Amino acid sequence: MTGRDLLGIEGLDRTDLERILETAERMQEVGRRDVKKVPTLRGRTLINLFFEASTRTRTSFEIAGKRLSADVVNFTPSSSSLTKAESILDTAMTLDAMDPDAVIVRHKVAGVPKRIADALAAPVINAGDGAHEHPTQALLDCFTVKQEKGRFDGLTVTIIGDITHSRVARSNLYAFTKLGAEVRLAAPPTMLPTGIESLGAKAYTSLREALEGADVVMVLRIQQERLDGCFFPSIREYASTFGIDRAKLRYAKDDVIVMHPGPINRGVEIAHDLADRRPSVILDQVRNGVAVRMAVLYQFAGRSAKREG
Amino acid sequence: MTGRDLLGIEGLDRTDLERILETAERMQEVGRRDVKKVPTLRGRTLINLFFEASTRTRTSFEIAGKRLSADVVNFTPSSSSLTKAESILDTAMTLDAMDPDAVIVRHKVAGVPKRIADALAAPVINAGDGAHEHPTQALLDCFTVKQEKGRFDGLTVTIIGDITHSRVARSNLYAFTKLGAEVRLAAPPTMLPTGIESLGAKAYTSLREALEGADVVMVLRIQQERLDGCFFPSIREYASTFGIDRAKLRYAKDDVIVMHPGPINRGVEIAHDLADRRPSVILDQVRNGVAVRMAVLYQFAGRSAKREG
Amino acid sequence: MTGRDLLGIEGLDRTDLERILETAERMQEVGRRDVKKVPTLRGRTLINLFFEASTRTRTSFEIAGKRLSADVVNFTPSSSSLTKAESILDTAMTLDAMDPDAVIVRHKVAGVPKRIADALAAPVINAGDGAHEHPTQALLDCFTVKQEKGRFDGLTVTIIGDITHSRVARSNLYAFTKLGAEVRLAAPPTMLPTGIESLGAKAYTSLREALEGADVVMVLRIQQERLDGCFFPSIREYASTFGIDRAKLRYAKDDVIVMHPGPINRGVEIAHDLADRRPSVILDQVRNGVAVRMAVLYQFAGRSAKREG
Repeated sequence: MTGRDLLGIEGLDRTDLERILETAERMQEVGRRDVKKVPTLRGRTLINLFFEASTRTRTSFEIAGKRLSADVVNFTPSSSSLTKAESILDTAMTLDAMDPDAVIVRHKVAGVPKRIADALAAPVINAGDGAHEHPTQALLDCFTVKQEKGRFDGLTVTIIGDITHSRVARSNLYAFTKLGAEVRLAAPPTMLPTGIESLGAKAYTSLREALEGADVVMVLRIQQERLDGCFFPSIREYASTFGIDRAKLRYAKDDVIVMHPGPINRGVEIAHDLADRRPSVILDQVRNGVAVRMAVLYQFAGRSAKREG
Repeated sequence: MTGRDLLGIEGLDRTDLERILETAERMQEVGRRDVKKVPTLRGRTLINLFFEASTRTRTSFEIAGKRLSADVVNFTPSSSSLTKAESILDTAMTLDAMDPDAVIVRHKVAGVPKRIADALAAPVINAGDGAHEHPTQALLDCFTVKQEKGRFDGLTVTIIGDITHSRVARSNLYAFTKLGAEVRLAAPPTMLPTGIESLGAKAYTSLREALEGADVVMVLRIQQERLDGCFFPSIREYASTFGIDRAKLRYAKDDVIVMHPGPINRGVEIAHDLADRRPSVILDQVRNGVAVRMAVLYQFAGRSAKREG
Repeated sequence: MTGRDLLGIEGLDRTDLERILETAERMQEVGRRDVKKVPTLRGRTLINLFFEASTRTRTSFEIAGKRLSADVVNFTPSSSSLTKAESILDTAMTLDAMDPDAVIVRHKVAGVPKRIADALAAPVINAGDGAHEHPTQALLDCFTVKQEKGRFDGLTVTIIGDITHSRVARSNLYAFTKLGAEVRLAAPPTMLPTGIESLGAKAYTSLREALEGADVVMVLRIQQERLDGCFFPSIREYASTFGIDRAKLRYAKDDVIVMHPGPINRGVEIAHDLADRRPSVILDQVRNGVAVRMAVLYQFAGRSAKREG
């Protein structure tokens, strides 16, 4: 792999991505057995260091680690006690001294996993940092598209929502572009960062144009506390203009699939009846998330201890 | 078994109950070894989905699962983020997509485990829902009585406390009745639901009459926040009229046993000195709870994956 | 061993201490492997019963237990629900009925682990109780000194900080004295308990004198909420008079090592640049903590069940 840590998709190349996706296919097979367990990481210690509450992603990593026979330890600092960068690093270094084979970090501030990785002997896996990156989410999204479409070249992936504040959008923009797909970003102007096209995507403020001919529609979760401010539209207005329903999907290809990183706001960014049934593949994404995280843990936590290498 | 989920005792028949109790006897033997572990559920994933805090029941299920070699994942949503039925179901469906072999659900609203079970591929085990049912509590109570008395036919089981709001009373009423015992319910009139006798029990507002000839006295926990209201007696009044002590036990049989689902309010529903010693079997109930939950997990989480069956 | 529980260093003799330190050396070797796991406690159940939040110590015990193949269950009661001594004991007895092989207890009130131990069948390991004792911290500190210095006889160990309120100071005072080292306690007069010298240590209010010729400097964490009161100096004053930096260390021996139980307050009791590099061995202490706790769990949780012995 390109590096010893998984901090973002930006630092990976196409070969790295393809290797993880291939490994995930083998891991997916494990999840289909009655005995969903392989001895790959037996005797390895994984620490889930989640400074930001995220029971879904944490659970996915925990199940992935346990299916690889690793020992998984959850460490959820109380937010009150760890506000200074200094104490965050001291906490991480303390855990590092317990010789984990990987530390999985989520933090609401962009860049914290990188700062931790710089200080630690153990490999660090970024489980989401502020508006920066959420690499395993992008990997599971790519895996899901590969399972559905069989390819990336020639595909059009339209990502819809608050692009500016979305680490999911950013990681997916890198991932799908590197893998050969065309990425479109659709949002109200206040949710589209200026200069985003320099990263290889096309930006749209017209949802209809962005959906035209799309193979994949990726709907982002709207942080409702961001709406109703002076810059952003109201929830009702957002739902009517950028919320995805079956009517709007008619602009996309007939075999379009709809993705969402969850948790969904039904009736806001995605219509009620659309969330649960095809063309939505939201629960497939969750299922694939375990396989992809098994692949990531295998790649990043399965090496010989660095301090002895 | 009668169904794929364990939502309540109401839906089970006598054969189901007897099978679980017999399996629990074999499981009890495991807990007596130094190596308290069997490979029965190796590679199976169990999720404890507790919307309502319950460290005791959660711990009992966790230990039961681990002694069967299952991977046990605790998922405790913050109550603030999950108030709508919609997000509860979405959370459960997300976890279901990670292919657990059973999801153990506790919620303060009656019926939530049923709604979740209807939506999930994984079997659901109800760990207590509102005032509806708490089936594993009733099973461990029956197991304890079987160990003590060797039979159910001809036994008189007197349940004392706030029957109206007690899922423990409801589940035990079904369980002991199906197994052939006579169930009496004793409470102040405001704590006795009208029509409860249609379920096969006898209702008493005189504690003395309810205790007359009883083989088993089951004391319910009083939710102190319910007392001192306009309908309920004060704590002091409740303790003196319905609180169980050695003096009142003289109305029951000489070999009566006293049970309590815990946690106990010493000096309220049960006298201080009674809680810790015979005829109380409260800690035996806890110990048996692990064996009974091992049996339940074996029965409900040990099947081949449903989505492939 | 001297007893079945590990409640403090006070109750151990030199042979006990040496046996644990020797076992820890073998355990340390396990942590250096890729497969950091031995089957020693397979099928044993350990319960972390932490009434006081302590993610670091809890994590250390959890990792230690898992590396010994034990099943580790975390039980963190909400502080609100368990304020009365009665409910603390009832909670512990409930867990005891689930047949754990050890219960690891932390509580902010001195003596709680002892009261729990008196009531339980399972061995109890004290993970810190009020200002009383923190025996595994002292053991890991002794282990670290043994690794660094190779001996205890003739060593001078200077402990600096709020001695009065420190369980770490108390346990280390017992441990190093029993092992043959000389212990000095240095603090402002308000932080030095009267009569402490009767336990075999020398008390100093002059930091310089206390450091003179020291082989080991142990810096205690200052509870900042204790400072700025009427009896204690301000943070700034404490840092300048008793905070340890490279300049003050010149009074000690050339090969002095600096220890701290963590978490550190950089710039208060220990200078910023001192914490991360030699002569500090703070992260070695953390690493050794896992090995020492493995040794303790092996000694105290690895026996045959008491109730059958």
